[in-house]
Amino acid sequence: MSNPSILILPGDGIGPEVMAEVRKVIDWYGAKRDLAFDVSEDLVGGAAYDKHGVPLADETMAKAQEVDAVLLGAVGGPKYDVLDFSVKPERGLLRLRKEMDLFANLRPAQCFDALADFSSLKKDVVAGLDIMIVRELTSGVYFGEPRGIFEEGNERVGINTQRYTESEIERAARAAFELAMKRNKKLCSMEKANVMESGILWREVVTRVGEEYPEVELSHMYADNGAMQLVRAPKQFDVIVTDNLFGDILSDCAAMLTGSLGMLPSASLGAPMANGRPKAMYEPVHGSAPDIAGQGKANPIACILSFAMALRYSFDQGDEATRLETAIEKVLADGVRTADLMGPEGGTPVSTSEMGDKIIEAL
Amino acid sequence: MSNPSILILPGDGIGPEVMAEVRKVIDWYGAKRDLAFDVSEDLVGGAAYDKHGVPLADETMAKAQEVDAVLLGAVGGPKYDVLDFSVKPERGLLRLRKEMDLFANLRPAQCFDALADFSSLKKDVVAGLDIMIVRELTSGVYFGEPRGIFEEGNERVGINTQRYTESEIERAARAAFELAMKRNKKLCSMEKANVMESGILWREVVTRVGEEYPEVELSHMYADNGAMQLVRAPKQFDVIVTDNLFGDILSDCAAMLTGSLGMLPSASLGAPMANGRPKAMYEPVHGSAPDIAGQGKANPIACILSFAMALRYSFDQGDEATRLETAIEKVLADGVRTADLMGPEGGTPVSTSEMGDKIIEAL
Ligand SMILES: CC(C)[C@H](C(=O)O)[C@@H](O)C(=O)O
Ligand SMILES: CC(C)[C@H](C(=O)O)[C@@H](O)C(=O)O
Repeated sequence: MSNPSILILPGDGIGPEVMAEVRKVIDWYGAKRDLAFDVSEDLVGGAAYDKHGVPLADETMAKAQEVDAVLLGAVGGPKYDVLDFSVKPERGLLRLRKEMDLFANLRPAQCFDALADFSSLKKDVVAGLDIMIVRELTSGVYFGEPRGIFEEGNERVGINTQRYTESEIERAARAAFELAMKRNKKLCSMEKANVMESGILWREVVTRVGEEYPEVELSHMYADNGAMQLVRAPKQFDVIVTDNLFGDILSDCAAMLTGSLGMLPSASLGAPMANGRPKAMYEPVHGSAPDIAGQGKANPIACILSFAMALRYSFDQGDEATRLETAIEKVLADGVRTADLMGPEGGTPVSTSEMGDKIIEAL
Repeated sequence: MSNPSILILPGDGIGPEVMAEVRKVIDWYGAKRDLAFDVSEDLVGGAAYDKHGVPLADETMAKAQEVDAVLLGAVGGPKYDVLDFSVKPERGLLRLRKEMDLFANLRPAQCFDALADFSSLKKDVVAGLDIMIVRELTSGVYFGEPRGIFEEGNERVGINTQRYTESEIERAARAAFELAMKRNKKLCSMEKANVMESGILWREVVTRVGEEYPEVELSHMYADNGAMQLVRAPKQFDVIVTDNLFGDILSDCAAMLTGSLGMLPSASLGAPMANGRPKAMYEPVHGSAPDIAGQGKANPIACILSFAMALRYSFDQGDEATRLETAIEKVLADGVRTADLMGPEGGTPVSTSEMGDKIIEAL
């Protein structure tokens, strides 16, 4: 049997730097744990635009469809702000999500013990926080038609369409219930059913899917109240399921509660492929951070933890994922800190690549 | 000249209780400050549904159009959850906003010194916080057509439409710039221009209006980053302008930062009427809180501060608004506390109506 395959798309800004550290980790698994991967690399975002004039070349898209997992760094940068909407770096990312049909975006918001002081929230509100947001990723207002800027009378109108079919809601809900079953069997679904019909359908379908999971305690919350509750008492949540746009905002809100954005990974999963593995893309929650790119300041942990999620969700190597996560916790407990993690209590300052080395050592 | 007119719509849950305290304050202004108002009262939300079978009767709507200001308590409650979407309590509120064309929703998020400990955020992150969110209130996905749940093949699809014309964006932006001019001359506009064409138009129009306000420092932020920044460092903001749906979520997030939802008022303003006053409705940010309704536990301050906003924005009585706000600060500094404000450091516990009395005393 051939090795499982990974396509690395470092992208823009700090993407290439943090991905270089992930490669060290991948190599370590091949050398030391007999877990070798066939790794290829390609361009996405502004980097792809610079070469191909589009933020994702067709050949890259085709490769992404064939591999067992895609690892993505980050896309975007001020240089590309002037580009037309249709070729902006983000479109490369959105094309991957859509064409790979990655409908379930898993965004853990976890507060690391060693870093609880970094949160803008009080320590007791966030210490031990461990929630999982499941965001629908291939539909809703991100992709609904009609969309665009149109002439109407003597002015223009900007239009986007929020659109969810029952089956789209159902598969996202099912992914969330399955996760809840493996965690604390508590799921909260968020929408604006008091204002939007798409939210009414969302609530109805989630409720129906919930009948298949009687052990899971299901609740519903309006998304505005959800934002409030995340700020007020985030530990009331275990798994949250919501749509593409609410998920974008609420997961970023949840991520920031932890205070350490440089630590948060994500997984975007689709349907099983012929080999039983789900279509999958893994990426850090942080962006391309152009202001610190190329300076060795970036924190590679979110990207390395994204690879840990790949081990768990794509390669059925939960134990190896845990090994990697534990190594990272140890390095943090030892006080090793990239610039973003350097607090008043000090620590050992390290560069991006030194952090990668320390993690390899801890492994 | 006749007295200025106010229509009071107490609504559901704690609405009537908190509004009773506002009436005391209104009466005080008539008796002691020679500022008499013609006050009438009517039904909205579930209370209107119970009587008329609709959450806002046509006659009430007509009255609201005629008065100088509407004061609204809160709408909704579990009893009405089973109602059809078209007659839910919220529809009464949305009808008022739409037909009065109240396009600029002003939501201050202010952290009261005496209550800074109530926030789930660290004291230094929120102490002295004073931001103003201007939310577009009459358009966007709340009102866009087509909308509904439709059959499509062998399943249903839920559809809502995000829709903004240039002039809708323009008037909301102008309201925000005007406010920024009176405050710290800093405005941040939030949308998802990286994903939504309506966001591109939003950004373009806000930028264009900004040329009329060269003194105001204008910035743009994606709404997901906006949620993060509100949690990370809210004091970086002065005025924020955003659309109806983002505004719903972001203003609730901002409100919760202060930790004292029972303290936050809002104003919804439209175009000037013949007498020069803007169409206006004032309401607390908190909801109908059915769990504590009728028990004298509700905090009337948000609703009373909404009347203070009416004094300022509808009746050109900025000094009297400040008088009322100062009285409330004094009562809080004296340790007078409704149940929601009772913290570990104690205080004098009071009921809803005792809080009203204390505020009158302080006036
Ligand atoms: C970069 C952008 C298109 C993207 C989104 O809006 O989904 C990002 O914010 C995210 O959450 O992954
Ligand atoms: C009650 C509801 C319709 C309303 C809204 O969504 O606008 C509320 O959340 C608000 O923010 O005033």
